[in-house]
Amino acid sequence: MSAANATATPVRILVWGENRHEQIEQHVRDIYPDGMHTTIAEGIAEHLGAGASVSTTTLDEPEHGLTEEVLAATDVLVWWGHAAHGEVSDEVVERVHQHVLSGMGLLVLHSGHWSKIFGKLMGTTCTLRWRSEQDRELVWTVNPTHPIAQGVPNPIIIDAQEMYGEFFDIPAPDELVFISSFTGGEVFRSGCTFRRGHGKIFFFSPGDQDYPVYHHKDVRKVIANGVRWANSELPQRAVPTLLRYNTDDFFNGHGYTGPIEDHSADAPADQ
Amino acid sequence: MSAANATATPVRILVWGENRHEQIEQHVRDIYPDGMHTTIAEGIAEHLGAGASVSTTTLDEPEHGLTEEVLAATDVLVWWGHAAHGEVSDEVVERVHQHVLSGMGLLVLHSGHWSKIFGKLMGTTCTLRWRSEQDRELVWTVNPTHPIAQGVPNPIIIDAQEMYGEFFDIPAPDELVFISSFTGGEVFRSGCTFRRGHGKIFFFSPGDQDYPVYHHKDVRKVIANGVRWANSELPQRAVPTLLRYNTDDFFNGHGYTGPIEDHSADAPADQ
Amino acid sequence: MSAANATATPVRILVWGENRHEQIEQHVRDIYPDGMHTTIAEGIAEHLGAGASVSTTTLDEPEHGLTEEVLAATDVLVWWGHAAHGEVSDEVVERVHQHVLSGMGLLVLHSGHWSKIFGKLMGTTCTLRWRSEQDRELVWTVNPTHPIAQGVPNPIIIDAQEMYGEFFDIPAPDELVFISSFTGGEVFRSGCTFRRGHGKIFFFSPGDQDYPVYHHKDVRKVIANGVRWANSELPQRAVPTLLRYNTDDFFNGHGYTGPIEDHSADAPADQ
Amino acid sequence: MSAANATATPVRILVWGENRHEQIEQHVRDIYPDGMHTTIAEGIAEHLGAGASVSTTTLDEPEHGLTEEVLAATDVLVWWGHAAHGEVSDEVVERVHQHVLSGMGLLVLHSGHWSKIFGKLMGTTCTLRWRSEQDRELVWTVNPTHPIAQGVPNPIIIDAQEMYGEFFDIPAPDELVFISSFTGGEVFRSGCTFRRGHGKIFFFSPGDQDYPVYHHKDVRKVIANGVRWANSELPQRAVPTLLRYNTDDFFNGHGYTGPIEDHSADAPADQ
Repeated sequence: MSAANATATPVRILVWGENRHEQIEQHVRDIYPDGMHTTIAEGIAEHLGAGASVSTTTLDEPEHGLTEEVLAATDVLVWWGHAAHGEVSDEVVERVHQHVLSGMGLLVLHSGHWSKIFGKLMGTTCTLRWRSEQDRELVWTVNPTHPIAQGVPNPIIIDAQEMYGEFFDIPAPDELVFISSFTGGEVFRSGCTFRRGHGKIFFFSPGDQDYPVYHHKDVRKVIANGVRWANSELPQRAVPTLLRYNTDDFFNGHGYTGPIEDHSADAPADQ
Repeated sequence: MSAANATATPVRILVWGENRHEQIEQHVRDIYPDGMHTTIAEGIAEHLGAGASVSTTTLDEPEHGLTEEVLAATDVLVWWGHAAHGEVSDEVVERVHQHVLSGMGLLVLHSGHWSKIFGKLMGTTCTLRWRSEQDRELVWTVNPTHPIAQGVPNPIIIDAQEMYGEFFDIPAPDELVFISSFTGGEVFRSGCTFRRGHGKIFFFSPGDQDYPVYHHKDVRKVIANGVRWANSELPQRAVPTLLRYNTDDFFNGHGYTGPIEDHSADAPADQ
Repeated sequence: MSAANATATPVRILVWGENRHEQIEQHVRDIYPDGMHTTIAEGIAEHLGAGASVSTTTLDEPEHGLTEEVLAATDVLVWWGHAAHGEVSDEVVERVHQHVLSGMGLLVLHSGHWSKIFGKLMGTTCTLRWRSEQDRELVWTVNPTHPIAQGVPNPIIIDAQEMYGEFFDIPAPDELVFISSFTGGEVFRSGCTFRRGHGKIFFFSPGDQDYPVYHHKDVRKVIANGVRWANSELPQRAVPTLLRYNTDDFFNGHGYTGPIEDHSADAPADQ
Repeated sequence: MSAANATATPVRILVWGENRHEQIEQHVRDIYPDGMHTTIAEGIAEHLGAGASVSTTTLDEPEHGLTEEVLAATDVLVWWGHAAHGEVSDEVVERVHQHVLSGMGLLVLHSGHWSKIFGKLMGTTCTLRWRSEQDRELVWTVNPTHPIAQGVPNPIIIDAQEMYGEFFDIPAPDELVFISSFTGGEVFRSGCTFRRGHGKIFFFSPGDQDYPVYHHKDVRKVIANGVRWANSELPQRAVPTLLRYNTDDFFNGHGYTGPIEDHSADAPADQ
């Protein structure tokens, strides 16, 4: 978010929640009575205040609440899913993918590592090692000047958490911001940034349905920082496109018309 | 390729060629009478000698010549496609993707930037700017200690080439080895490495059906270097997998049994 | 610069100019009648307005104008030097180095690539290939979502410039933002970011005493963007320090007392 | 090490040991009766066999055993120091620095993080958090296809070790290969590669005078892998140099003759 934008228009943030554990499991509902997405959204609003307008939607909405119209009006999408990754329709995933490549920011939280959208953006399996046994998680800053690392202690202490461990099958992140350790001794690249197309992506692993992590003061701060970082500074949203440029004309691209064409002088050859 | 492997077993290299321009266009056939894939394969064999066994296959073979059996017996796959990216079946792309993530090396050449397999591995559009007007391409080394940059002049001079220019919509490469310039003044990240899963990927942009680039001495050397670099040193091929590990047991992972489970002590909680 | 800081206190920017060419060479004085540092400073002020307070100093000032007091009151230092790198005292270089590692932002412009301070921060020779023959420079954006790349065309066209070419002996930058080409066909990593200690560094190569590059609209915009990016978000300036931490105490570090110590329980062992 | 070199000439490895703890402290002498450098050298020889010739030298030798002649005959230098970093002469550090930038490989082990040569190559303080209290160290692979990570379990388990923790003030490594955790919960980027000039550098943190870490099977394997990786493939050693190139002559650089020169046609302008 540029300083100028900050004062001008609030960042439009949409928190997408799978919202299944909350319906099925009482112990999750106890922790997140209004749904995890609501708690996540509250944490963001708490930090960004008037600089942001935060809303939520869930899997069970028509088109999972992610219509073309909704995405076009979203600056940063925050994604939490776990039990129902397979229920997210490929069509919606494709739509979100296009919006990220066009400039919409994306935060992928915790078990979202195995979501279709994260896998599609990373190109890898995004698998890891895990265990849910009340490990303490320590989140260490390894990039102290990064905007996402501001305003939190080093380490952030989370008393009880699911363990996520290496090897985490992601591309080497553009920036590694946090590394976590767990009581059992595992480590995890828990805060990673990626730039894809015109979009910025922040993966942050703390957070789970079985633990009250999204009520944690520092976790909320990091997520708010991530939203601010992922918000595009580009003047408009557009997916990168293949274009032909004549010699000495750097600014007027021509659309692609197929691989095999006429080779005469005024009809430029195929790519 | 480890020194040990070099003496032990030859690297099994498969060059995949689309082989359409060669059938349709006489001027391409004039440059590559046995098909582009054959010329590429010859360039590799010329450099790796007894250290490699090089074969070729093409789009029009059954399953595009990329059956499970063939891929399982391939250490490094080299990909050239252009006019018929859309004809490559999604099933075969998925199969190649799994093999790359499992440890098969992959070289993507030139117009392969827009192939399904490269897009799937990168997660971006892989679009760029282009023009086919006989630009001279200069390929500059920016990573002189990289194994792929050994044995070639700085710059490599290619008298006539298609222009590929920035912005090239790829993830920031793990290693940037070459940057090209063109007569018209455009620049391009022309030699890039990526690690994905257990596989290594090298993208190298010089090479086109309309120009005799795969006969170029230095281009052949780079491709051979790339093959050697991309060849896995892992003892066996395996796709990264999500596994649960008990506390204090770092080596015996348990398969995933679903997101919502019993929370009693001996049945570990869901991820 | 965080949005909050933007409204609160202006960024304190100091442009350091060698100011030798301007005194010795009439053709430089013709382009930069008030000194290059003044023109650079004006370009920054023009873009940051009330968000910045910009001042200048030069080599010939006592302590080169870079006393401890001055540096402590500088948020971002902009460095231009060329003919007299060797005259910059090692003591001042050491002082600037400590301030960068403590959190002061640093922009190194053009021939500053060979300055003592840049070499000390990079650890390499920072050499390159060059020629001053009126080459046209095109500055291409390869990282379109980076804050430093906002608000300028792709490419930036500079009609006449000194050529800087690869191999440029720097560490692989944390982020590669711009790549330039020149009429002669050379390429150069012309916009690079580096994080060192608590400081952020931006190297930007366009700019020379023999050409009016610092009057160029887009060059001025990039430099202003760079200043904004390099400005620290950390609450205070402090150089990273080696500290001993007791088990389970993550926040109270103990100073180093030497490598060989008593091994009894209350006197922690040597490092 | 290229396959060709492997069979042709052995890699010439020199292990440099400070050799002070061994003289002063009986408990260190008990673990490393012939000096730590000897144990490290034996571990390398054990893995590289006929592919390497390994020798050692120490701080107390004339010129610390690192004369110009010795360095010119060294392919990879391995550095262990701790108690006496300050006693290493600046002249020798400068000499080693030049050799690294010219192509000599360098391994920096453990407390070598605070050596003059590592600091000079990194440009940062290279400080960290630490504690010597018998922590168990687990060394996790985060880059499984890297040559340095081959042949060791994930994780490597070191029963007792000094703790090294983040924030470790180094530049973001070119490649992050290992991350360690410690009993106390700290994490550390324990295996990092850096390319500087024509040289390759591997930092590996396990290893300490108070623990028998250099007798550890997996630690020895990693160090041997690192040596092999750091060995240059360049045909000759040369420090990168600033050179002027005429237009259209890419291969005949001219030496630098000073910043302010004649501007006539046959005497190219200043840089």
